Parts: sequence; structure tokens; C-alpha cells
Amino acid sequence: MREAAHPTPADLRIVSVFHALSDPARLGIAQRLLAEGELACSSFDLPYAKATRSHHFRVLRECGVIRIRWEGKYQYAALRRTDLEHRFPGLLDVLLNQLDG
Amino acid sequence: MREAAHPTPADLRIVSVFHALSDPARLGIAQRLLAEGELACSSFDLPYAKATRSHHFRVLRECGVIRIRWEGKYQYAALRRTDLEHRFPGLLDVLLNQLDG
Repeated sequence: MREAAHPTPADLRIVSVFHALSDPARLGIAQRLLAEGELACSSFDLPYAKATRSHHFRVLRECGVIRIRWEGKYQYAALRRTDLEHRFPGLLDVLLNQLDG
Repeated sequence: MREAAHPTPADLRIVSVFHALSDPARLGIAQRLLAEGELACSSFDLPYAKATRSHHFRVLRECGVIRIRWEGKYQYAALRRTDLEHRFPGLLDVLLNQLDG
């Protein structure tokens, strides 16, 4: 099984997290994962080419916002809730309170 | 007296705020204003050319993170605490808790 690289909690940086969430598509992914829990990456109906979709998930993974897990040939994404709440208290509140855009 | 343009609270967008705060210099400005209140823009000892400094303050103003006030020939900056807390509950907590970087 392939394993994607993830930063440790100590390596998370708020400027990188803010950058990742400054894109509407990536913010939407994070908010949906916060609301619904782990989801197959393919379940996101994003109006982008595959390379752009992959880019968005990679940016979110590399800054520590999401964890990616492979199961067979499918990728699943989950918000790193515990790590985010521990490192950046208040951030999940911001995301929760902006669900309406 | 010159007046800089500021968005209304209803016009604040979290993606724009995240973008503004994704730069270490701008994040530092916002955090210092949060900790110390209104300050003269010239009191920030930023290692940048004047145009770059102006750019950072402009980005923070245009997304609604700070309010700029002219007094004579001096500019003062203040965090829009009330507007930010009202529109994005939790955001000031994130900034407060990241004062150590």
C-alpha cells in the first residue's frame, strides 16, 4: 500500500495552513471533511481537471490539514482534527462558523 | 485628511483573510496589533523596502484585518478586533495562540 508523507504535529505551521485554506476549493474540502468525517477523494465533485484536484489535496496534506489514506486503489481524506485543534486552538471554530461561505 | 478605503464587515471574506495572514510579515503585524493595540505603521521594524511594507499594510487593510487612520502625515494601524471576532469567531484565538510563532 502506498503511503503519502504527512508532517508531524510539531511541524505544522500556521502560515502554511492559512495559505492552504485561502483557496475556496481547498477551504470547501476542509469544511466538508470537518462536517462529514473521512471521505473518498473521488466523492468531491470539484469542477477541475484531475491534476488540479490532486494539487489541492496535496497542498492540504503537505501543510497538515488533512490525512490521506490509501485503500486499494482509492484515496480517502480526513481532517486532522486533533492535531489542528491542539496546534491551532480556534481554527476549527473558524471553519465551522464559515460553513455558509 | 486622506481616508483609506475599508471593506464593510459584511464584505469580509475568510479566504481573503487567510490569504493575508499566510505571509509571515503580515501575520506578525496582525499579531502585534492584537497584543498592543493601535500603532504607528512606522513603528514596525520590517526588513523590507518601503513599497513592500506599504503592500503588506494594504493587503491587510483591503481584506478587513486592519483599519488605517491618518493623523497628519502619519499612518496608524489597528486590528479590526470586533469585526473579525463577529465575522470569524475563533480567528483571534488562533492569532493569540500563535504568538510564539
